[in-house]
Amino acid sequence: MSNLNSLLAELVTANRILAREGVVDTFGHVSLRHPERPDRYFMSRSRAPEQVTLEDLMEFELDGTPIDLRGRTPYGERFIHGALFETRPDVHSVIHNHSQTVIPFSVTKTPLRPLSHIAAVMGSEAPVWDIRDKFGDTDLLVTSMEQGRDLARAVGKGAAALMRGHGCVVVGSSIRVSVFTAIYLQVNAGLQMDALRLGEPRYLSPGEIERGGQRQLTPLALDRAWENWCLRAGVSKG
Amino acid sequence: MSNLNSLLAELVTANRILAREGVVDTFGHVSLRHPERPDRYFMSRSRAPEQVTLEDLMEFELDGTPIDLRGRTPYGERFIHGALFETRPDVHSVIHNHSQTVIPFSVTKTPLRPLSHIAAVMGSEAPVWDIRDKFGDTDLLVTSMEQGRDLARAVGKGAAALMRGHGCVVVGSSIRVSVFTAIYLQVNAGLQMDALRLGEPRYLSPGEIERGGQRQLTPLALDRAWENWCLRAGVSKG
Amino acid sequence: MSNLNSLLAELVTANRILAREGVVDTFGHVSLRHPERPDRYFMSRSRAPEQVTLEDLMEFELDGTPIDLRGRTPYGERFIHGALFETRPDVHSVIHNHSQTVIPFSVTKTPLRPLSHIAAVMGSEAPVWDIRDKFGDTDLLVTSMEQGRDLARAVGKGAAALMRGHGCVVVGSSIRVSVFTAIYLQVNAGLQMDALRLGEPRYLSPGEIERGGQRQLTPLALDRAWENWCLRAGVSKG
Amino acid sequence: MSNLNSLLAELVTANRILAREGVVDTFGHVSLRHPERPDRYFMSRSRAPEQVTLEDLMEFELDGTPIDLRGRTPYGERFIHGALFETRPDVHSVIHNHSQTVIPFSVTKTPLRPLSHIAAVMGSEAPVWDIRDKFGDTDLLVTSMEQGRDLARAVGKGAAALMRGHGCVVVGSSIRVSVFTAIYLQVNAGLQMDALRLGEPRYLSPGEIERGGQRQLTPLALDRAWENWCLRAGVSKG
Repeated sequence: MSNLNSLLAELVTANRILAREGVVDTFGHVSLRHPERPDRYFMSRSRAPEQVTLEDLMEFELDGTPIDLRGRTPYGERFIHGALFETRPDVHSVIHNHSQTVIPFSVTKTPLRPLSHIAAVMGSEAPVWDIRDKFGDTDLLVTSMEQGRDLARAVGKGAAALMRGHGCVVVGSSIRVSVFTAIYLQVNAGLQMDALRLGEPRYLSPGEIERGGQRQLTPLALDRAWENWCLRAGVSKG
Repeated sequence: MSNLNSLLAELVTANRILAREGVVDTFGHVSLRHPERPDRYFMSRSRAPEQVTLEDLMEFELDGTPIDLRGRTPYGERFIHGALFETRPDVHSVIHNHSQTVIPFSVTKTPLRPLSHIAAVMGSEAPVWDIRDKFGDTDLLVTSMEQGRDLARAVGKGAAALMRGHGCVVVGSSIRVSVFTAIYLQVNAGLQMDALRLGEPRYLSPGEIERGGQRQLTPLALDRAWENWCLRAGVSKG
Repeated sequence: MSNLNSLLAELVTANRILAREGVVDTFGHVSLRHPERPDRYFMSRSRAPEQVTLEDLMEFELDGTPIDLRGRTPYGERFIHGALFETRPDVHSVIHNHSQTVIPFSVTKTPLRPLSHIAAVMGSEAPVWDIRDKFGDTDLLVTSMEQGRDLARAVGKGAAALMRGHGCVVVGSSIRVSVFTAIYLQVNAGLQMDALRLGEPRYLSPGEIERGGQRQLTPLALDRAWENWCLRAGVSKG
Repeated sequence: MSNLNSLLAELVTANRILAREGVVDTFGHVSLRHPERPDRYFMSRSRAPEQVTLEDLMEFELDGTPIDLRGRTPYGERFIHGALFETRPDVHSVIHNHSQTVIPFSVTKTPLRPLSHIAAVMGSEAPVWDIRDKFGDTDLLVTSMEQGRDLARAVGKGAAALMRGHGCVVVGSSIRVSVFTAIYLQVNAGLQMDALRLGEPRYLSPGEIERGGQRQLTPLALDRAWENWCLRAGVSKG
């Protein structure tokens, strides 16, 4: 397989993994920057991630214009992805999800912070972006580049941002990095919620976050996780 | 398939989906107003939703009289459905369930309110109906049109009402709408319960509820969800 | 099948159902009073309920003496069952389990009380029996008729008692009744735990408990549940 | 099968069981001391436990030196195992895991203590080891014998220690004992977290812990659990 074909297969697999691990349900999506044309990205047509196949993948310009529509309906919120690829040249994959473990942190003042060493990959804190601050009453969906860019500003140089009453966005230098980060952001949210019942948790220190983030995102850890998640999702290692 | 046959197949599928997504267990039911005779509705005989097949479907007059009994036992609480079809001409499908995530909100003073944009479909708040207020000590089951009509008054023009110590009722303009609303009412209940642990949640504003409700109930969102739930429940898209 | 054979098949099924519904794990057991000889009962040899087959069933006298050992090892806690059959002529099936949802109520002062109409079958409250009160430091297991009889006194005329730091015992007039009660005791424990997070729950009134208990234990409700649980556990309706 | 081969098959099975019961995810590992050469141990190469097969097993000296590398990558944290085998001649199996139920107790001041009779196997309390105390800012991984020995000191003569923001380590006189202890340590953590919501729990007394620990670790209980977990994990009893 060419590098591109292999990455597209990996994108399909990422959809299945995120569904299997409970990060996405009917909604949510994952994208891949075109490996040869950084001004384009790939993402499924409007379909639940658990059902996505190679044939569902579409190609887009960063502003969300489909290259090859062929009668398919794209995700209405694809601007999240384009805006992040535009703002962050280091980002090659973006995930948007409605994780039920993460959302509670988007509507309260308790910041989501890493307390598990693996969650060091999320950085020191996940900022909360509220679409209402700039756009007032909406249906909370990100349906324009203007909204996407505002969200991208909230992400800044970080790995993730929560979206108030909606979900979160996670970015990574590759599909495996964004999937890993999205899953352990969710794991950490569950751990933090339980720890808060028991008392004030001890979070990772800045030094631990830096060292832990580096360690977790080595191919050794990423590939071990990827192999495991593929098998659990019932797909080949792609 | 005729329109009627296609809707009846969808009704069977709705039973399976609600079971798969944990909205109903052994108890709970979903009905469909007859598409050509608004004074009648269809619902399974007394059977767990996970087991319902086409052969189990029965036809009823709005007062609960079975059209074609054939020795089958109808649900004892079918009056919930008839009373809502009677009161609400816009309603074409009714769901009654004992969702374990929703019930806690039926016995305390904390109102169930939407904080997730998708849960905008439930409206601004789910009122709690207590059978005891009018009927005193009962087994809490709705076993007469009088009780059903009292419950229908609590639902009013809304999409749902909780039933104290029992469960809830959800209505929709179609099967897909009622199923979607019942599932995301449950999702929101779980999110709200977790958010309340973290602090006072920020709920959707009235404008967000209105815009979000419209957006979520477009065919695009409904059909994407339906396809996904069918596949998860192991049934064809029906 | 004779009545006895049919009941023994049902006893095997009960084991599988209780495992599938998460009421028992490796430990826990369910018994049946001999339908023709009230001074005897049947129960599996020492084996996880999920694995029990017809060949594992053993017959016992009420004091726990095996009728037909054939080299098999009986459960060490069978005295729970014998003592309840001895004390309660109306009881024909006993379940002992370590439900993880129920145990928290056995170690705190918050009484487990019915708030869901279906849980009316548990009665007004599940008393907590503490083996330590009479027997001091033990391994908490009920390994003699003396201990079993003390536990039976705590159950009294009720349907269940919690066992401090250990689990609970549930009794019924038939296998289907004891299984139904054990499952909805667990469901209610989960509901009550969640409701307590939201505020002081409104529990069922004495009149509701009486009416609800009668209604839920009719063949209509019991058989609907049994059929559903059989199918979920992957066994025929037996 | 020779005793060694039979134990190695059991080690593979232990990996699968721990994954099935949710004690390990992609990370975590279980080891076996060589039954004939107490200065060596066996453990999988770097791979998710759910995927481990006989071919993945490697042999190590206590200091972590692989006997027979054959191009495979060992776990970076194998020093946890070597240090415990070195310090504790009575230990023949070590488990390191990131159980999401246990971790919250590692970052707060609420000690994890047994309240369920089966959890008596964990001893009176699981001490928390914080790598930061002696090693300052790290990625929290145990990557040297020095760190492993420091952790072993925290375990002392006990059955388990929590690792702050990371997970825990569990030791046993055999694979079945360490697996049993790791699973019921997790069960107890969940029970304690729920009980704490209801009030101050009554924990096991010292006498109950001593008696319960002895009782649970008899072959009768261990083998009943092992058979059940094997079947649930889809592996033969090995």
